[in-house]
Amino acid sequence: MKRIESLTNQWVKDTKKLHKKKYRDLTNKFIIEGEHSVQEAIESKADVDVIVTTDKGIETYQSLLNEINEDKLVIVPDAILKQLSELPTPQEIIAVMNKQEESQSLGRKMLVLDTVQDPGNVGTMIRTADAAGYDQVILGEGCADVYQSKVQRALQGSQFHVSILTNVNLVQWINEVKEKNIVTIATALDETAMSYEEIGEQSSVAIVMGNEGQGVSQEILTLVDKKVYIPMKGKAESLNVAIAAGIVMFEI
Amino acid sequence: MKRIESLTNQWVKDTKKLHKKKYRDLTNKFIIEGEHSVQEAIESKADVDVIVTTDKGIETYQSLLNEINEDKLVIVPDAILKQLSELPTPQEIIAVMNKQEESQSLGRKMLVLDTVQDPGNVGTMIRTADAAGYDQVILGEGCADVYQSKVQRALQGSQFHVSILTNVNLVQWINEVKEKNIVTIATALDETAMSYEEIGEQSSVAIVMGNEGQGVSQEILTLVDKKVYIPMKGKAESLNVAIAAGIVMFEI
Repeated sequence: MKRIESLTNQWVKDTKKLHKKKYRDLTNKFIIEGEHSVQEAIESKADVDVIVTTDKGIETYQSLLNEINEDKLVIVPDAILKQLSELPTPQEIIAVMNKQEESQSLGRKMLVLDTVQDPGNVGTMIRTADAAGYDQVILGEGCADVYQSKVQRALQGSQFHVSILTNVNLVQWINEVKEKNIVTIATALDETAMSYEEIGEQSSVAIVMGNEGQGVSQEILTLVDKKVYIPMKGKAESLNVAIAAGIVMFEI
Repeated sequence: MKRIESLTNQWVKDTKKLHKKKYRDLTNKFIIEGEHSVQEAIESKADVDVIVTTDKGIETYQSLLNEINEDKLVIVPDAILKQLSELPTPQEIIAVMNKQEESQSLGRKMLVLDTVQDPGNVGTMIRTADAAGYDQVILGEGCADVYQSKVQRALQGSQFHVSILTNVNLVQWINEVKEKNIVTIATALDETAMSYEEIGEQSSVAIVMGNEGQGVSQEILTLVDKKVYIPMKGKAESLNVAIAAGIVMFEI
């Protein structure tokens, strides 16, 4: 157990830098916040660097903290915890995590994100993929950084359940996947595409969801095996991309 | 056409107050922002009080502005538009709307929100209801205010497509609906409930979605005809409520 009291401590300064993508990339570390996320990390045997809490937190989260090695524990005053957190009113427990090495083996059911830029959408879609029994999420170049606080919050532990690949060249990836006879499907806004309900449940599939404004890029639409759309029954022009992903993944 | 130049103008001050629920309730007015929302309002013949734009906006949105009566137009400098907007970089067109009187007639397919507190969730769920062909959304007491900026942004025009009732006593409402032989269904986190896939498409139905943390309240769960749940196929414990609503509404 280590106790850090000073806001100007070098470790505090370095850890605070993890709020920025540049430093997360440089150090291969990221921060998760709150009891539920930390518990999921521990239960999933993810690579915890340290757990940061306060004197009060040691009591509140006693049973959770019992599960980790004491030398991974850092106790700080509220003022430091507040600095390390990105929430206005943080829970008194956060963890610094080491990024997992990305698995190069293909999943069975895969969700592929093409330039999805909203962090909340990225987080919700990975959580939904987990709930739908999808085991891998592929984030193409230009997606929101999965290790940022907003995404991690929306993930609710699903970052430790599904395999996540980041910064993937999707054109290359889809070509490789197609050679392995995995069905590739992209959602299109095109009403001449097939309705998602006609596809039926697949045992092995990659489903591509696109950018919030533009949808899936033309280059990828021409590559995939099938294009599907969700018929609009009312007057709305489109669905939020995370909702669309949920509907399609629970069907296919 | 009216031109207002001064930030201390009384109309500017009053309109800015519409950022607060208290004043929206008092005046029965609210603000929508951006070309798409304003266009949907005009096309749906919703009750536009005034449209506010800038000299530049008059050119940019010329064809849209041609569709409205000139005396409903207010031209302001950028500084005033920025004050009236709740966005960091506003589009140069906003509208002050008069709230529509809430329809007392029942919809055919209805989404019922029980204490859904996140504005983004409320907005996305109404938009999804519209897309799924639901024609009425009932917001119980304790839901996020539908007329606030965050909800209106997520709605993308669906506020003008579906009938919205607010601040409804849900216990009373569900009792009344049941007397009219409409099937009432609540989503439960209870795995002994029926799977949503067993229900099938309904021609007339009310589906209740619950609070982000607690789900549908016990009192309402005991009232409804059926309880359904969405089976989790992976390790996630639950779905975001807006995703769950999308999956259920596109199935039932």
